This record gives sequence, C-alpha cells and structure tokens, in this order.
Amino acid sequence: MNNKYIPLPVIKRLPRYHRYLEELKALGISHISSKELSERMGVTASQIRQDLNCFGCFGIQGYGYSIKSLYEEIGSILGLENQKKAILVGAGNLGKTIATHLKFDSRGFDLIGIFDADEEICGTAIGKMTIQPLTKLNSFCKRRHPDIAILCIPGENAAEMTDRLIELGIKGFWNFTQFDIAHTHKGVAVENVHLSDSLMTLCYRVNNMDGPDVNSK
Amino acid sequence: MNNKYIPLPVIKRLPRYHRYLEELKALGISHISSKELSERMGVTASQIRQDLNCFGCFGIQGYGYSIKSLYEEIGSILGLENQKKAILVGAGNLGKTIATHLKFDSRGFDLIGIFDADEEICGTAIGKMTIQPLTKLNSFCKRRHPDIAILCIPGENAAEMTDRLIELGIKGFWNFTQFDIAHTHKGVAVENVHLSDSLMTLCYRVNNMDGPDVNSK
Repeated sequence: MNNKYIPLPVIKRLPRYHRYLEELKALGISHISSKELSERMGVTASQIRQDLNCFGCFGIQGYGYSIKSLYEEIGSILGLENQKKAILVGAGNLGKTIATHLKFDSRGFDLIGIFDADEEICGTAIGKMTIQPLTKLNSFCKRRHPDIAILCIPGENAAEMTDRLIELGIKGFWNFTQFDIAHTHKGVAVENVHLSDSLMTLCYRVNNMDGPDVNSK
Repeated sequence: MNNKYIPLPVIKRLPRYHRYLEELKALGISHISSKELSERMGVTASQIRQDLNCFGCFGIQGYGYSIKSLYEEIGSILGLENQKKAILVGAGNLGKTIATHLKFDSRGFDLIGIFDADEEICGTAIGKMTIQPLTKLNSFCKRRHPDIAILCIPGENAAEMTDRLIELGIKGFWNFTQFDIAHTHKGVAVENVHLSDSLMTLCYRVNNMDGPDVNSK
C-alpha cells in the first residue's frame, strides 16, 4: 500500500510506463532521459517529468532516470510485488487463453485455481493447473481465500456468479463478460475487457479516418 | 459514413449503448425511457438524453425511445452495417480465441482470412476458415483488399508486420500486441487491447480499494 497521493490520470498511465521500462530493462539499458522516453512512448517529455515527479522520481542531469529504480517504483505503486490470489471462472476457449497467455506473477497475481461448470472438461489440465468443477468453488474459497476472480463465463450466468463470488470473499473482478459488475455491485474493484466494444470502436475509427480524433484515447 | 458532428466522448459511449440496446431488443422490449435506461446503465438520465440528442434521437413523452430505431441509428453511426473486411494475423491460442469468440458480422467486420507463420498449423481450420501461411499474405491482400488486420503475433514481430500490412493497404489494426502502432504509424486507425495493462490496473484497484476512484474510467 502506498501513501503518496497520485492523481488518477497518472495511475492510468503507469501500466504503460511499466511496460516500456520492462522492454528497456530487457534490452540491458540502465538509464534513459525523459526526452528519449518521450520519443519512444509518444508522450511529451514534460508530461513524463511531471508524471514521474508525482511519486518522487527525479532524473539526474546528464544521466536521466535509472530504469531499474523507476521500474521497481512503478511496480510498487501498482502493488505488483504484493501478489494477490486469483481464480479463473470459465475455462472455455477464452478462459484457457487468458490462463496461458498472461504472465500473472509479474502483473501482481498468483493464479491459484480454475473452475468450470462443464463436468466433461473438469480434471483436464491448463498449464500446471487442473480444471475443477464449480461444485468445489465454495470449499476452495473458504480454504484458499482468493482475492480476485477472472470471469470468462457466458453473460447470462454472470450476475448470479458475481453474487456468489462476492459472498465467498472475492474483492475484485477481471471481467470479460458483458455483465456490468461495477454498476450493480458497489465496493468491489472491477476492470472490464469488453472486446466487442473495442471492435465497434475500431469500426467507427476505420469509417471516420479523416476526422481529427481517429486514435485519441 | 455519417455527416453529423458527434463529440468524441459521446462516440466512446456508443458501443456500450449498442450493447445494452441489443440485450433489450433480445428481451423483446420495444421502448425504454431515458430513466429506465439510465438505471440499467448506471449513467444519469440527463446524460443519456444529451447523448442521444446529439444524433437527433428524441424520446416520445410517455413512450420513451424506440429500442429498434435507436439500436439501428447507433449501429449506423458506428458504421456497423458498412462491413469492412478483416484478416487475422497470428493463429496461436489468442488468435484462435479471438476468431471464434466474437460475432464479427454484427460488429462491423467480415473475417475473410487467417494467417500464421507456423507452417505446421497452416491448412488446419478455425471455424469455417483455414489457416494460411504468411507466404500467401501478399497475394491474398492484392486479390481481396482487406481493410483491417487483427494482430495476435509476438510483439517482436509486430513492427515489421505492421509495415508490411500497411504496404498491402491495411487501414486499421485491432492490436493485441504490446507494439505501439499508433505512435509509430500515423494515419492508420488503431484500437489496442493491452491485456497486461488491464491486469496491472486491476492490481492497483484491488490494492487501493479504500480510495474514492476505485472503478472510475
């Protein structure tokens, strides 16, 4: 937990800084100036200096920022080292891909369980984990206390499943369903991935490429 | 193509309206008041009236909005009926899931080709389509003129592939890689799905649940 006050718009940019710094670190680069970082990221150098000043990271004249310290500082503000326990609910194609595609441990989470309603696929493995039936969800949560759930189930089951998971102590959702958890369930953290919204936004952008706002966030 | 000027923040909300209206339509509901819609969506009724007024949709006193007309009007502003041709590049787990999980045709796109560098998986089917080798990409694009590419390839190949696709006439990208297309390639439409950024944002939210901003956009 971090006590510094950091404005929300800065927080929203942190994953992107983290991602760029990770790449630079992998390339073996030790320092970077705000100017170079700004060129790579397509953000102004003064925006970068302002953002990083927010959490007390100051570049050194002639050296720039230490990539390692900056990377660690941003990771610490995001809370990545403070691993939270995650479960995946719904092990269809999407769920399976999510479970295998992401480096959970370097993004702040430990994936400790995978559940599905379909008894046919229960017992089969995804990576090192075995899919468990939903009938074991309650006892598992009581024993292991997961913090967040990744929802990859059909939308029509999402409301009921959300209630059940909150009842079982889940405090956050990575929501791949269309169901609007944040609206109906206050007091839990929600991050939505609405793929079809994203696709429709792209459709608008491709149809309106002459407008000034084609890629603005 | 639509000639009405609609502010960008309104455009960004349109996929969400579209999604809710689709659900209401599926439930057989014909009309809805801004008040009811606002309760379902967790937006104020005056925000909804203001948004919908932007493109000349006015509710009728006592009846509310016609769901069918509103759904069609929003679809038309987004350009969903004006289907664009899409190809998927990268048919690993993520690519396969994207190809099968989404209803492309109701989101403005017709998925016409799937390509992968791995000759081993070329010739195998995803849904009704056969994975083609990247060696056939150029001739395919010259013959079929796809409008957008869905990028599900490893990040290290993304820069080169983006250049190649733009050269081949691709005007938009649904980008699942970490590569920052919008920054390096001006004049193409880009919509990013950065799953690891989303996961890190959730990490911050779960670690800072007592803050006022836990789920703000």
